[in-house]
Amino acid sequence: MDKSMLAVMDKAEVLIEALPYIQRFNRKIIVVKYGGSAMIDEELKKQVIQDVTLLKLVGFKPIIVHGGGKEISRWVEKTGMEPEFINGLRKTDEATMEIAEMVLNKVNKSLVQNVQSLGVNAVGVSGKDGGLLKVQKKLSDGQDIGFVGEITEVNPKIIMDLLENDFLPIVCPIGMDENFVTYNINADDAACAIAKAVNAEKLAFLTDIEGVYKDKDDPDSLISELTVEEAKDLIGDGYIGGGMLPKLNNCIEAIEQGVSRVHILDGRIAHCLLLEIFTNKGIGTAIIGDKDTRYYNE
Amino acid sequence: MDKSMLAVMDKAEVLIEALPYIQRFNRKIIVVKYGGSAMIDEELKKQVIQDVTLLKLVGFKPIIVHGGGKEISRWVEKTGMEPEFINGLRKTDEATMEIAEMVLNKVNKSLVQNVQSLGVNAVGVSGKDGGLLKVQKKLSDGQDIGFVGEITEVNPKIIMDLLENDFLPIVCPIGMDENFVTYNINADDAACAIAKAVNAEKLAFLTDIEGVYKDKDDPDSLISELTVEEAKDLIGDGYIGGGMLPKLNNCIEAIEQGVSRVHILDGRIAHCLLLEIFTNKGIGTAIIGDKDTRYYNE
Amino acid sequence: MDKSMLAVMDKAEVLIEALPYIQRFNRKIIVVKYGGSAMIDEELKKQVIQDVTLLKLVGFKPIIVHGGGKEISRWVEKTGMEPEFINGLRKTDEATMEIAEMVLNKVNKSLVQNVQSLGVNAVGVSGKDGGLLKVQKKLSDGQDIGFVGEITEVNPKIIMDLLENDFLPIVCPIGMDENFVTYNINADDAACAIAKAVNAEKLAFLTDIEGVYKDKDDPDSLISELTVEEAKDLIGDGYIGGGMLPKLNNCIEAIEQGVSRVHILDGRIAHCLLLEIFTNKGIGTAIIGDKDTRYYNE
Amino acid sequence: MDKSMLAVMDKAEVLIEALPYIQRFNRKIIVVKYGGSAMIDEELKKQVIQDVTLLKLVGFKPIIVHGGGKEISRWVEKTGMEPEFINGLRKTDEATMEIAEMVLNKVNKSLVQNVQSLGVNAVGVSGKDGGLLKVQKKLSDGQDIGFVGEITEVNPKIIMDLLENDFLPIVCPIGMDENFVTYNINADDAACAIAKAVNAEKLAFLTDIEGVYKDKDDPDSLISELTVEEAKDLIGDGYIGGGMLPKLNNCIEAIEQGVSRVHILDGRIAHCLLLEIFTNKGIGTAIIGDKDTRYYNE
Amino acid sequence: MDKSMLAVMDKAEVLIEALPYIQRFNRKIIVVKYGGSAMIDEELKKQVIQDVTLLKLVGFKPIIVHGGGKEISRWVEKTGMEPEFINGLRKTDEATMEIAEMVLNKVNKSLVQNVQSLGVNAVGVSGKDGGLLKVQKKLSDGQDIGFVGEITEVNPKIIMDLLENDFLPIVCPIGMDENFVTYNINADDAACAIAKAVNAEKLAFLTDIEGVYKDKDDPDSLISELTVEEAKDLIGDGYIGGGMLPKLNNCIEAIEQGVSRVHILDGRIAHCLLLEIFTNKGIGTAIIGDKDTRYYNE
Amino acid sequence: MDKSMLAVMDKAEVLIEALPYIQRFNRKIIVVKYGGSAMIDEELKKQVIQDVTLLKLVGFKPIIVHGGGKEISRWVEKTGMEPEFINGLRKTDEATMEIAEMVLNKVNKSLVQNVQSLGVNAVGVSGKDGGLLKVQKKLSDGQDIGFVGEITEVNPKIIMDLLENDFLPIVCPIGMDENFVTYNINADDAACAIAKAVNAEKLAFLTDIEGVYKDKDDPDSLISELTVEEAKDLIGDGYIGGGMLPKLNNCIEAIEQGVSRVHILDGRIAHCLLLEIFTNKGIGTAIIGDKDTRYYNE
Repeated sequence: MDKSMLAVMDKAEVLIEALPYIQRFNRKIIVVKYGGSAMIDEELKKQVIQDVTLLKLVGFKPIIVHGGGKEISRWVEKTGMEPEFINGLRKTDEATMEIAEMVLNKVNKSLVQNVQSLGVNAVGVSGKDGGLLKVQKKLSDGQDIGFVGEITEVNPKIIMDLLENDFLPIVCPIGMDENFVTYNINADDAACAIAKAVNAEKLAFLTDIEGVYKDKDDPDSLISELTVEEAKDLIGDGYIGGGMLPKLNNCIEAIEQGVSRVHILDGRIAHCLLLEIFTNKGIGTAIIGDKDTRYYNE
Repeated sequence: MDKSMLAVMDKAEVLIEALPYIQRFNRKIIVVKYGGSAMIDEELKKQVIQDVTLLKLVGFKPIIVHGGGKEISRWVEKTGMEPEFINGLRKTDEATMEIAEMVLNKVNKSLVQNVQSLGVNAVGVSGKDGGLLKVQKKLSDGQDIGFVGEITEVNPKIIMDLLENDFLPIVCPIGMDENFVTYNINADDAACAIAKAVNAEKLAFLTDIEGVYKDKDDPDSLISELTVEEAKDLIGDGYIGGGMLPKLNNCIEAIEQGVSRVHILDGRIAHCLLLEIFTNKGIGTAIIGDKDTRYYNE
Repeated sequence: MDKSMLAVMDKAEVLIEALPYIQRFNRKIIVVKYGGSAMIDEELKKQVIQDVTLLKLVGFKPIIVHGGGKEISRWVEKTGMEPEFINGLRKTDEATMEIAEMVLNKVNKSLVQNVQSLGVNAVGVSGKDGGLLKVQKKLSDGQDIGFVGEITEVNPKIIMDLLENDFLPIVCPIGMDENFVTYNINADDAACAIAKAVNAEKLAFLTDIEGVYKDKDDPDSLISELTVEEAKDLIGDGYIGGGMLPKLNNCIEAIEQGVSRVHILDGRIAHCLLLEIFTNKGIGTAIIGDKDTRYYNE
Repeated sequence: MDKSMLAVMDKAEVLIEALPYIQRFNRKIIVVKYGGSAMIDEELKKQVIQDVTLLKLVGFKPIIVHGGGKEISRWVEKTGMEPEFINGLRKTDEATMEIAEMVLNKVNKSLVQNVQSLGVNAVGVSGKDGGLLKVQKKLSDGQDIGFVGEITEVNPKIIMDLLENDFLPIVCPIGMDENFVTYNINADDAACAIAKAVNAEKLAFLTDIEGVYKDKDDPDSLISELTVEEAKDLIGDGYIGGGMLPKLNNCIEAIEQGVSRVHILDGRIAHCLLLEIFTNKGIGTAIIGDKDTRYYNE
Repeated sequence: MDKSMLAVMDKAEVLIEALPYIQRFNRKIIVVKYGGSAMIDEELKKQVIQDVTLLKLVGFKPIIVHGGGKEISRWVEKTGMEPEFINGLRKTDEATMEIAEMVLNKVNKSLVQNVQSLGVNAVGVSGKDGGLLKVQKKLSDGQDIGFVGEITEVNPKIIMDLLENDFLPIVCPIGMDENFVTYNINADDAACAIAKAVNAEKLAFLTDIEGVYKDKDDPDSLISELTVEEAKDLIGDGYIGGGMLPKLNNCIEAIEQGVSRVHILDGRIAHCLLLEIFTNKGIGTAIIGDKDTRYYNE
Repeated sequence: MDKSMLAVMDKAEVLIEALPYIQRFNRKIIVVKYGGSAMIDEELKKQVIQDVTLLKLVGFKPIIVHGGGKEISRWVEKTGMEPEFINGLRKTDEATMEIAEMVLNKVNKSLVQNVQSLGVNAVGVSGKDGGLLKVQKKLSDGQDIGFVGEITEVNPKIIMDLLENDFLPIVCPIGMDENFVTYNINADDAACAIAKAVNAEKLAFLTDIEGVYKDKDDPDSLISELTVEEAKDLIGDGYIGGGMLPKLNNCIEAIEQGVSRVHILDGRIAHCLLLEIFTNKGIGTAIIGDKDTRYYNE
């Protein structure tokens, strides 16, 4: 048998190895929070889209929830305004909100475009469509920081209808309050709220970190699996800080409301989603209900 | 019986008068091209949304297709560029296209917001979503004017699925070519193409004119109904010029491909859509197949 | 703008005012007990049919339950019999029952005819069809008054199937006992039992009175809204008598078994049904669960 | 084995013999025109109802179409009018029409009652319900004989919906013209028109004759099977007269429009319907398309 | 009326007598355990197939579960092995298991063939298909007797799908354990487990005895109906022994888990199934929940 | 990045490469004729099952049609008979037919078992189930060789229902003639007939040869793609002989009746099915309609 044939047969083996993973998640909903470097680096972006499209084609039901981070700041500046932050949250006046919504929708349709180019039907919606995300004003330490909303209700009908009709839904985190005023929403919060509302099997955050560390100064202390109990202890013991704290709280909340596994993935690794799902090598940190649902070799 | 009761009973009579019109269009699709003054004047805007929402609630299946005209120019200037027109068509380089798409999506979601605030579920899509609008580059007198597309194919699945699931679809005229590159599309063309693809009963253009005139200098020569034959004669005789020419050609094409009636309405009249549909007083000009389908008293 | 156009635009405003009411009851079931003067006066009859047909067309699911009162007596006499009443209830021997059933079915098909002539599909059924109404003999103060039945069970399958297939069901109050013998039923009772069985949102009685009065000698003491508690108090205090007592008890029972609002309307007012539903001027008396569901300005 | 057991086992054999007939007509529609003696004799009536109910239960889809003949005359007289006939057709003025409709609906609901008592769900409709039967005035030799209609259109939706929802439809031959005026219809005509509209497999007329004779004076000349060609020849040769002529023409028309077999049965024979369907002894005369569809031993 | 007609009319009466029984079990699932003499005697076999096919055609949903008993031994010997029994259970080594599976599938397809020849669509499955029957090794008094399994789980999807698609399922009692190893299953156990899993109305065992006796030496002491309580008492009092004990325990378990009636029928009587279902002469012994469900005259 | 991670990332690339192939055949039916060495060698058998199961899980709709070849001869001998062949076709007397059916069903259920063990629901049927394969006796050069049948009709309802309910159908080539007598069928013929009847996209034969050769003595002359025209020329020119001739004729017939591509694969190559479908290296020979559907680089 010639060499090219051997290489080809290796490929068959890889496909066969994927079999049990495909089975396990068949027709399950997976919410992917897409953000960070994976949204900026063109190669990484292409790979994330490939991964999600493949998940769709092999029978999963992925939903993308994305932010727009740096692009928003770029456009705020472009129109001559000065980005302003309070306690790390963007102060969002009416003009900023207008720019933010335009940029998020631009990103949204650009993702639709990428998925369509791979032959899969995608539809981009914001939290306004079909009343998907209802919010109320969110204060920052009691201070009004403008049109920043926290989710009070998710109406998942449009998402479920799109999944039912075989579309891949792509969601940008904009919502309306009870007076139908527009608000910006943290994308992590939106992904978490949607995952709960659609009863997702998995929620995966693409981030710019490797995962959760026992000792944040020791790169070898990456934790591959963490029960909700363990996560709460880590938080209680003050190990977790910075942007990881709300993210980890989101993870805990998602698990407690019915999502089976939440993953904090390193979005800087090519095809991190596929690797997480189709191999038994854990990428990043998985938050799980309890030890019985643990499945990586540590 | 007191006076307030009499007033109330007059209202009942109006509702009863609407009965035959509600019956006639029950579950029929009506495509509304929304543009011009009706998009700028806040009061008119509110009334158009009320009209379309009412049509939805009484059993019609309306679809809104909108442009973004003046708002695009405003944003092009805001970001320091100079709008440029060739033969009346906007020269659309990559930067302009980016702005145009952002603005159109902003308008799109703002319409969703307005409809949602009236308690009806709307979903805003662009021609990218689900591959709705496929285009190729459009030349202007053989000259390349950038990312301006003409529609080559409509894939109405997303629209039909939204109607089926009881959403009101709102479409902005952006499409992709076979390489999945973004193009701007004339909103009239998009409305016409979609009306044909979904087999609409009616297509209504909200414009800034009163309708088609026999003699454009004589305001009393407004034509209330025009068969395709008559419209072709008017064009052949050179009576029709300016922006009306392509619009009238769109009307003729729509009728010839199965739309029953096309209306050129004066969007500056409050509730012009309701008036057109629920009264037997013709507003603007209706283009029809032949004389047998005529139903206004002239 | 000319005068005729202004009049037309007033009409548009009326339609727009109906919007929130159409929304509130969209796809909700409304049972209309049709009787009294509204069944005898040809003009009122036409208006009731128009009202119910409009409700159907704008998305409600109306069901008509009707009696046959005076027409039955007329035919009993026509065939040479003497109508006989015991405690206000018609003594119904076999011959009278035969006439009563013939008359009720005649009225039933005549209503079907009227609704069909307005372009809506109606189907007339009696409580025999599909075993809709099961009864047992009803005694009057322990006395046998013949084939007068009280409902023991409602099998709403035929009604639900007709609604599902987009027909307007029209029901006449005839039932069978466990031996499949024919009985006459009080139409108010039938309307109430059906409203409960199909889980109606509203139950409206068209009557020949203006509503419930605090002081039956004071025409200004009409009560526009009455909670179940208040209604029970009124009855307990002996304010309610005559034909109103069983009707009010029916109302209370309907509310207690899940109907949201019950209306006692003055069927002598033109379009009283539309006025009740599409304006915020209360016609007659509404019986509601408790004060929180009150919505008229008193 | 004791004697009672032997008797019981004979019964099993009868059921087994029915097997191939049950198979042949499984889920096929059978229209039964019910009239004549079988409507008057209580024992025969009970047997017809048993037969049709059994057909329903073993998987057929029967529809009953009935007349009211003698009962109408009885009531016309009862109310002091004089029945009047022109060329054998009842002159039907408005008062007669009113009585006729009442009587037909009485008979209709009485049949519903009988079927319900055997545990099968039936629904009685007239040609008014759901616009089932549309008619125009029928002249008799050019003479106006009042409200006697001939069918111009059948809208079988209500019948198909009832069959779909597992009800046994029972139809009385009343229709409306284009102005929604009530007309009486010949029951044979109604049965034939409905059989064609619902694409029935079989149409069976219960009559008061044994069938079609070659020689009407020779009781041994009963024809058990007749092709459309043969039937036309018999008519052409002047063998067929009286009430049989329109009936035979109805049969021919039904066959020519897609009904597979039409039967003229002797309704005076107990269980004639079951005998016809479940045994290979032909009862009465079958009209068939051509000789290839012949299946009785002659 | 001639004699042949009289005979034919007697047949009609038999069909009419079947009416109430057809009604009672319409669309109900009936599991028939087919075994014993009725599987060996060709005439009896034909009659059982006729009976089950008739049940299918008149609206029941029968499922056949069969064994292969003597045929297995015949083939074991044919291939030169010696059948071996321990405590009355066949010792099933790998070679025997292979033969047993082949024979059971042969019998299975032969039954399919018989049913198909009567014009009804049947599909034969084993407990392997769609994972229908999951088992674990069954010990006999603690002793390993090879591949004999006891059912731990029933996955009835394939059975329900076949019924839904109008097939008659025929099941042979083979199952797999958690390692997907093949096991033989007692056919009575399989019938009982399936009856419970599909929520059957009836479970009928075709056996080679007349039923349960009060006094096994007195042929007149046959019990026609037995409540679960009475059956437990009989067992407790030591009246029941041999193969009847596990069968009776199966009956009790089936009743306790929702099957309405279980029948022990004498499969040696022609058409015993039809007789049991369509006549009020009890064949064999019925096990019922309590006395209220008793319906034979004793 | 460490080495194990690199290896893992290579795997992701392989999955991504499969994307376009998964898309192309999504929800398409693929009939796999399974036979030859791939049925005997345990490792190859396992790989074929893995391949088919993977195809099922990633969205294809595979159907397996299998033979039983050598196993039948083994059992014929085991029971003391002498296999006999006439013109290469097994002479199939009644005893041989009985063995053949038992063996084919054994193989059938063993394949079900293998697929179930990989977590996919399979159902094994023969051509008897639901009347799938109807045959007539096949003569060999005019000589009666017993129960060898040729297919006259395929009734694919059971296959389509199983696919619809998400089962993987596994078919063994047994059929019945019009008298419901059992016949053996060539498995290639059965696969071809089923592929046509279910309108398959692909039909793949697993064989023991590498494919079709231009020059059968030159191993380098393997043809990777062959149009129907070219295949007919090869046959006409006498290049094709032996068992390849009927197989190639089957391929031609399948293409001519609507199957898009037929593959003659070398079943001795591990994962030949996956390699054929998921790589652009042609394995064996593909028969296609015409040159426009060619897609391998030659």
